[in-house]
Amino acid sequence: MAHLTSSVEYGIHCLLWLVDAGDAQPSSRDLAELQGVSPSFVAKIFPKLEKAGLVVASQGVRGGYRLARPPQDITVLDIVDAIEGPKPLFECLEVRRRCAVFDGEAPAWATGGVCAIHAVMQRAEQSMRDALAQETLAGLAGTLACKAPAGFGSDVQQWLSGRGAARGAVRAVPMTRRRPDPSP
Amino acid sequence: MAHLTSSVEYGIHCLLWLVDAGDAQPSSRDLAELQGVSPSFVAKIFPKLEKAGLVVASQGVRGGYRLARPPQDITVLDIVDAIEGPKPLFECLEVRRRCAVFDGEAPAWATGGVCAIHAVMQRAEQSMRDALAQETLAGLAGTLACKAPAGFGSDVQQWLSGRGAARGAVRAVPMTRRRPDPSP
Repeated sequence: MAHLTSSVEYGIHCLLWLVDAGDAQPSSRDLAELQGVSPSFVAKIFPKLEKAGLVVASQGVRGGYRLARPPQDITVLDIVDAIEGPKPLFECLEVRRRCAVFDGEAPAWATGGVCAIHAVMQRAEQSMRDALAQETLAGLAGTLACKAPAGFGSDVQQWLSGRGAARGAVRAVPMTRRRPDPSP
Repeated sequence: MAHLTSSVEYGIHCLLWLVDAGDAQPSSRDLAELQGVSPSFVAKIFPKLEKAGLVVASQGVRGGYRLARPPQDITVLDIVDAIEGPKPLFECLEVRRRCAVFDGEAPAWATGGVCAIHAVMQRAEQSMRDALAQETLAGLAGTLACKAPAGFGSDVQQWLSGRGAARGAVRAVPMTRRRPDPSP
């Protein structure tokens, strides 16, 4: 098992599709099905992204999600923090206070400042966070654009627009035509 | 909850006490009681440290643990890896292969090389590991030695030696004297 959950992977992939979604505002179900992953799983990720100010939800028949700010202003760290929450690398339990030699009362020299072990962990965590903060959604989208053939972006836009249109069409059909009363 | 378990904190603290343990070879129980933490919890950490080649166990009445190599050759990363095992920051599930636009067969351009998201995570993980590898047990012990008053190291050695001697004394007492048969 990895330190970061698979929600992070799904979340970043979803947001990547929103970078070039054009006018389409995909639902979390659209994005899940575009990627062949569980819609219910993806549905749990979007409220976290919305709460963190990374996406905006629009209501209505064709409602869905769009990025809340330009992709160059959304870092991988922003996404990890939004999904994982405040989870430090290391939690210091202040073991140093309990040394038996202190006879129950730890002296000031032993408890002052950050524990040296904790300080190492904080430096390591900061290095990791710095690396995650260096990459933006725009950067990732650029890497994808360099690999993909010319028509891929518009294929995806078309797929997402088709889904939005289909949702609109289904909602526009009167209920009586969609769910007729059973014959007696 | 933190990414690293509290076993890492206990493990590093235990190894720190072994740096200047002198002739004493503390048992895992000695080290747990020196630090006021659960002996059964600490007992589960030492087999991992031994398997990773960080400590050596000695048998016998006064048997216990000592460092398997000089403290300047044991990094915090060595200890984290020994205790946590191979736990990556991120596990790539290759979501990129399943895009609906590919119609069930992902093209080579989409699957070649490391996924760009995975690559960011690998860089972040490496930054974290580099930081953990920069600090050694000797460095941590040096920081502690700078903070502690002159007599602290010998107080701890004396405490540990006393524990070893007590174990020897208990074992030296014949069984019949320690656990007399109940009177009829």
